[in-house]
Amino acid sequence: MMRKTIVKYILGKILIVESCFMVLPLIVSFIYKESYLEKIHFIIPILLCFFVGKVLEHFGDSKARYYTKEAFLSVGLGRIFLSLFGAIPLFLEKEVYPTYIDAFFEMVSGFTTTGAGVALDVELLPHSILFWRSFSHFVGGMGVLVFTLAILPKVNKQASFLMKAEVPGPTFGKIVSKLSDSAKMLYKMYTALTVVLIIFLLFGGLNLFDSMIFAFGAAGTGGFANYNLSAGAFNSRYVEVVLTIGMLVFGVNFNLYYYALIKNVREAFDSEEFKFYIAIVVFASILVFINIYGMYKSVSYTLINSFFTVSSIITTTGYVTVDFGKRPLFSRTILIILMFIGGCAGSTAGGIKVSRVLVAVKSALNEMKKSISPKRMLLINVDKKTENEEIVNSTLNYFIVYAMLFLLFLLIISFESKDFETAFAAVATTFNNVGPGLGLFGPMENFHSMSQFGKLVLSFAMLMGRLEIFPILLLFSPKTWKSSRKNKDFEEKL
Amino acid sequence: MMRKTIVKYILGKILIVESCFMVLPLIVSFIYKESYLEKIHFIIPILLCFFVGKVLEHFGDSKARYYTKEAFLSVGLGRIFLSLFGAIPLFLEKEVYPTYIDAFFEMVSGFTTTGAGVALDVELLPHSILFWRSFSHFVGGMGVLVFTLAILPKVNKQASFLMKAEVPGPTFGKIVSKLSDSAKMLYKMYTALTVVLIIFLLFGGLNLFDSMIFAFGAAGTGGFANYNLSAGAFNSRYVEVVLTIGMLVFGVNFNLYYYALIKNVREAFDSEEFKFYIAIVVFASILVFINIYGMYKSVSYTLINSFFTVSSIITTTGYVTVDFGKRPLFSRTILIILMFIGGCAGSTAGGIKVSRVLVAVKSALNEMKKSISPKRMLLINVDKKTENEEIVNSTLNYFIVYAMLFLLFLLIISFESKDFETAFAAVATTFNNVGPGLGLFGPMENFHSMSQFGKLVLSFAMLMGRLEIFPILLLFSPKTWKSSRKNKDFEEKL
Repeated sequence: MMRKTIVKYILGKILIVESCFMVLPLIVSFIYKESYLEKIHFIIPILLCFFVGKVLEHFGDSKARYYTKEAFLSVGLGRIFLSLFGAIPLFLEKEVYPTYIDAFFEMVSGFTTTGAGVALDVELLPHSILFWRSFSHFVGGMGVLVFTLAILPKVNKQASFLMKAEVPGPTFGKIVSKLSDSAKMLYKMYTALTVVLIIFLLFGGLNLFDSMIFAFGAAGTGGFANYNLSAGAFNSRYVEVVLTIGMLVFGVNFNLYYYALIKNVREAFDSEEFKFYIAIVVFASILVFINIYGMYKSVSYTLINSFFTVSSIITTTGYVTVDFGKRPLFSRTILIILMFIGGCAGSTAGGIKVSRVLVAVKSALNEMKKSISPKRMLLINVDKKTENEEIVNSTLNYFIVYAMLFLLFLLIISFESKDFETAFAAVATTFNNVGPGLGLFGPMENFHSMSQFGKLVLSFAMLMGRLEIFPILLLFSPKTWKSSRKNKDFEEKL
Repeated sequence: MMRKTIVKYILGKILIVESCFMVLPLIVSFIYKESYLEKIHFIIPILLCFFVGKVLEHFGDSKARYYTKEAFLSVGLGRIFLSLFGAIPLFLEKEVYPTYIDAFFEMVSGFTTTGAGVALDVELLPHSILFWRSFSHFVGGMGVLVFTLAILPKVNKQASFLMKAEVPGPTFGKIVSKLSDSAKMLYKMYTALTVVLIIFLLFGGLNLFDSMIFAFGAAGTGGFANYNLSAGAFNSRYVEVVLTIGMLVFGVNFNLYYYALIKNVREAFDSEEFKFYIAIVVFASILVFINIYGMYKSVSYTLINSFFTVSSIITTTGYVTVDFGKRPLFSRTILIILMFIGGCAGSTAGGIKVSRVLVAVKSALNEMKKSISPKRMLLINVDKKTENEEIVNSTLNYFIVYAMLFLLFLLIISFESKDFETAFAAVATTFNNVGPGLGLFGPMENFHSMSQFGKLVLSFAMLMGRLEIFPILLLFSPKTWKSSRKNKDFEEKL
């Protein structure tokens, strides 16, 4: 049985939080003395968001019991509502976002921390809009619901279903016993790391606004920039190195940082997923380096840029300094593979997640051994603990579900594309929440030339990728929308 | 412990059988009154094959016990030896096959029933060579080892390991109680169906030679033709329809035909895999038809060709009548997906196999349901029987292993390619034993322009695809090549 009243309550809370968030770009608008109109563009949605939020909260029921289904529905609808309301200021900026779908795509891209844009010239955008796009990365990365949990005075015990549905990765461990404390702790560490990154960028000569934009983009592993050349606008090796490290840091499971804080640093990072993640980054960067060796005069810059590009893609951030779409196919293929891997579970990154890849690789290696000696019993160990058979099984299934949906999106997008690489990379980069594609939608281009239908489809690809598929799939199930009364009898039989 | 003596014995037998097979093209050479040299090109390898076979048989031990490992090694090395010796007549034909690797690639492509060629102009080839290439499809399709089992006077009980290793698909059911009878029965049905196809092609106005070439190609789901335009050379709708049905027939599990013969036709084809296979063909053909509607003047021809192309690709045959590489991306993407699906288990087709896809899809659907109601126990039923959990698990693992190897091949091939579609389709078409690629190696082109290294890598892709990965992987395991004495102690501990 789907309990819709609790979903209404949670959605109401989310919208109220969003209306508060939108006050920040309004302040930015005042600081930069933007026109009267720019302020109106934010005041309208702030009021609207607050009003709709209050109405939903009123008709909702904060005390209803809820489980996975209700959590999925809240998380799924939550991101869609955030994007729908968050798109209003962009849509009112008609010059850059001619249609509401353009604005919606851009905000979905923001809240899912994808960073795939449709703005032909971002440098035309006012500071307030630039700030709002990038701020959506920051809150989208750690989860708006997680944030809501952190600030709510009383958190229902069942809220763990909500947190589980929003924090990416196959498993979710509460880091402290009380859930709202967990959420608060996550946001504290997250904000602290973002502030550190802002400071490092300030040292590189960036102004405060640029530093914040790029720190938000790296923290949420989003990738929106306020320059058409993305991070290439600074033309600075220092910035490239700082962003490389910054992006990698936010691609790590945040639980590790917590353990490092309260326990032992060494023990915290003695995680197989972490080591595998670093190993992939180093290995892929070296391969890219070998492949593009000689393309740039400076060997040291070639090395820095290889690490920068690999880190930007595997963490699904998507910042660019040079057009890697023009590199040899070998480098491009590596980047496409990295898009699918993504960051660690429990980080702000998208993709399939390193931990799932690790389990799948171990399981595949076991299968190879078993094929030769069928009688052997082989267990899968991660971090010296034997993985539950059910977890292994559902990880493998996740790959199949992922592949099926990827192929479905690819088929739809191939209908309006001429080039296989363009279509393949467009789906890969949105489904995995990376940002830049290849070919027609390459790193120095964006999705502005795509059809409205294509943008709508890829918006759902981004939402599915970010929320790990099931919450968005639930929205397409007819059962979800059946009236409660009828549903009750039917569902209770199950 | 690896028992090498039995492997030697089996390899010896395979080579003796091959030397007998090569007598057939020699006879063709006599019929077409080819030059003295052409006959020598076959007489040399016939003698060599027979001699090496006898030597191996002599040093081998027919009575040694063997299991999966030995069966895998025999099957893996078997196909490589067949190709190595089978390539000699082609290599001696220097004009078309400048290097031995070219000739090897072509014969691997033959024995794995891929049909990807390197001959720039096949119409230059003598009849004897054309016959030999296509005959390798015929014996490669049902398995040379299965053939060997069928003709051996006494078959070891353990030979079921051999048959299991060679017949494609996740499960293998002995169709009759005695193994050699199973093998004989398979070859009888196979030959009968091929003869029927030859007769149908003769009715279409093809001469006997052309009919045999195209029937061999369709029976083994190979795809080698004796015209540069492939099946397009006949420019006949009748031939296209006959080949469509022919290819589809050989993509079906042969057990069904056996049950239809001895039991009930209706009951035999009441198989979920069969229905899923037909459903995919019909659905994909309609999508292609809609996509290419208007490209040809005749609507009925458009429909025929949609079915022909889809059937040719899903059965992994690879016959072509028009250049589908020039069709819109949507059609090309469908064809690429079909390459991976492949035919039914227990057929002569390559690919992942419809039965595996069926199990994976069912498992993925269960996972979606489970994600919402975690407590539900869901079983996977195929043909009204509940699938063993272990089979489901190893099917899922097979997908992961498949994907990992695909990515490895893709990375290697992308090193020497410029275009993603070309590289992706080149690996897809060889790994799945289809034949025609896209882009540079498209349907009206072939692999002649690829580097020697690329050809060697793709030869292994073809072998892995055909033998369902593990027998060829075993060849790359250092343990396999350790001397028996040392191995004995080590392996027996396991």
